[in-house]
Amino acid sequence: MRTIGIDLGGTKMLAGVVEDGQVQGTAKAATPSGGPDQVIAALAEIVASLGGAERIGVGTPGVVDPRAGSVSHAPNLPGWDRPVLLAASLAEATGVTEVRVDNDVNVGLLGEWRAGSAQGARDVLGVFVGTGVGGALVLDGALRRGPRGITGEIGHVTVVPGGRECGCGRRGHLEAYAGRAGIEAEARRRHAHGTTTALVELAGDGPMKSGVIAKALAVNDPLAISLVDEAVTALGLAVASALTLLDVPLVVLGGGVADKLGAPFADRVAEAVRARILQGSAVEVRPAALGDHAGIVGAAALFAAAPT
Amino acid sequence: MRTIGIDLGGTKMLAGVVEDGQVQGTAKAATPSGGPDQVIAALAEIVASLGGAERIGVGTPGVVDPRAGSVSHAPNLPGWDRPVLLAASLAEATGVTEVRVDNDVNVGLLGEWRAGSAQGARDVLGVFVGTGVGGALVLDGALRRGPRGITGEIGHVTVVPGGRECGCGRRGHLEAYAGRAGIEAEARRRHAHGTTTALVELAGDGPMKSGVIAKALAVNDPLAISLVDEAVTALGLAVASALTLLDVPLVVLGGGVADKLGAPFADRVAEAVRARILQGSAVEVRPAALGDHAGIVGAAALFAAAPT
Repeated sequence: MRTIGIDLGGTKMLAGVVEDGQVQGTAKAATPSGGPDQVIAALAEIVASLGGAERIGVGTPGVVDPRAGSVSHAPNLPGWDRPVLLAASLAEATGVTEVRVDNDVNVGLLGEWRAGSAQGARDVLGVFVGTGVGGALVLDGALRRGPRGITGEIGHVTVVPGGRECGCGRRGHLEAYAGRAGIEAEARRRHAHGTTTALVELAGDGPMKSGVIAKALAVNDPLAISLVDEAVTALGLAVASALTLLDVPLVVLGGGVADKLGAPFADRVAEAVRARILQGSAVEVRPAALGDHAGIVGAAALFAAAPT
Repeated sequence: MRTIGIDLGGTKMLAGVVEDGQVQGTAKAATPSGGPDQVIAALAEIVASLGGAERIGVGTPGVVDPRAGSVSHAPNLPGWDRPVLLAASLAEATGVTEVRVDNDVNVGLLGEWRAGSAQGARDVLGVFVGTGVGGALVLDGALRRGPRGITGEIGHVTVVPGGRECGCGRRGHLEAYAGRAGIEAEARRRHAHGTTTALVELAGDGPMKSGVIAKALAVNDPLAISLVDEAVTALGLAVASALTLLDVPLVVLGGGVADKLGAPFADRVAEAVRARILQGSAVEVRPAALGDHAGIVGAAALFAAAPT
C-alpha cells in the first residue's frame, strides 16, 4: 500500500512517500495562514505532487482525537480556533479513504521508534526540545495517548517552583528553561537589564534560532553557557522524574535545539538524569536519528498501530 | 474459586478470604524475622487458619517478577537478602497450585481499583504515604509494571533539588518530605537543634507514628504544621508532574500518614496539585477507601488480571 506521511507544522508542511520505514521521496510547502480549508487544500496538493497515495498519515500540532481524526487547540495553526475534522476533510479532498491523524510529538516519537534511535524499544520517553518542549511515551510497546489525548506534556512539569513564567501562564515549568522561546525570553530580559551577550548580537531583532544558541555556545558566551546549563539541569530533573515514575530505561532526545546542540548536549542531559534517578537503575539518552524525517516516517507508521 | 489475599508486611501479615472484591474473614500474624523459610511457613499457617484456598495472592515488599513469582530487594523483610521464589515455595508449602505475587504498592492500588475509591477508573495514580512514599499506576485499564518491575517510584522523584537527604542516599526526594520517616528525621533534627515540638514530646524515644503527627497537628504544634505544609507542597509538586506527564485525571491517596490525617489532608494535596497542573485540566484526589483491606482485596484481585 502506497503510504504518504505528512508533518504539518505551523510554518511548513513536509511530506514523503514511506516504504518499510524508509522515506522514498519528499515534498515541502509553506503552511497557508488562511485557516483549515486552505491548509487541507495545500495538503491535497502536496499529496498529488508526490503521485498520490492509498493511505495518508498526518502529524499535526494540537490536541488530537485519533479515532475521530479531529484536531483542536492548535494555536500554532493560524485560524484553527475550532475543532477540525482533519482526517475526513483530507479524505474528501484527496479521494484517499484511509487517513489517520495524530499529535506531531506522538508522531515524532513513532518515527524514531519505527526507524530511528528507539527502534525495537518496548518502553521509551521521547523529549523534543524546540520552540517549546514536547514529550511522548511508548509504554509496553504501544503509544500512550491518555483519556484526553494530552499524554507526554513534560514541558509543563514544574522544575523550579515559583521560577520563570511559562507560556502556559504557570511558573517554573521545564519549557520555560529548556525551550528555545524560554531561553530567548530570558536572554532578551537580561540583555534589556544590561547584560551583553552574543545571543542577542547574533539574533538581532529576528528570532533567536537554535543555531544562534549553538553559535553563542561555541564562542563561550557566558550567558549562553549559563542558560544552557539551566536547560540541562531542568531537563535532567524532569526526565529523571518521568523515568523514576514509569520504569522507562530509554530516552530519545530530539527537536531543533537538541539537534543543533548535538551529541554533547544529549550526553550532558544523560549525566544530569543519572544524577537524579534511583541509584543502581540504568538509563540511556540517545539523540534522535531521523531529524526532519521523523514526522514523515511516524505519520506513515500510524498505519502500523491501530488507533485506540 | 476460594481465594485468599495476603498483605505481607515487614512486621505483620494480614490475610483474608475474598469473594467478589469483598473480604469475608481475616486473620493476622506477626511476620517472623528469621528469613524466607520461616515467613513461608507462617504464610502457610495463616492460609490453613482461614480454612485453606484454591488460589492465593500475595502483596509483598520488594521488587517482584510476577511471572516468575520471585521477590528481590526486600530490605523490609529481615533475612531476604537474596531473591526468593515466593510463589513456588508457598505453593509447595500449602498444596495450593495457583499462587500469584506482586509488589505491595501495586497490590494496594489494585485493591482500591477493584473495590475501593478507584473502582472503574481507566487511569489512576495511587500514592501511598506511610513510612516511605510508594506509588503505582493503572494506565489504559491495566496495572503498569515496567520492564524492571519498579514502576511508580514517585517517592524518589526530586521535589527540592539539593534538599533533605532521602533514605536512598539521594537528596530532595518526595519521600524525604512526605514520608513518616522523613518527617520524623527532620523533627528530631530540629528538636536536637533546640526546637520544642509536640511531635517529639508525644513520640518520646519510640517511633513517631502517624497518629503522633495527627495529634501534634490537632494541638497546632508549629513544627508539625510546618512539616505537614512541606509534605503537602512536595506531594503537590510530584503528583502534578506525574499527572501532567501521563494525562491521568485521578489520584488515590492512601497509606498510614494519609489515612490518619484524613480527608482534609487529601483536600490540601488536591489543591496543591491543581496549582501546578496545566490550567484547564481537571484532577480528582480521593482518599483510599479500604484501609488495611486494600492489600488483601488487591492480592486476591491478582487473579482478575493475568500477569504480563
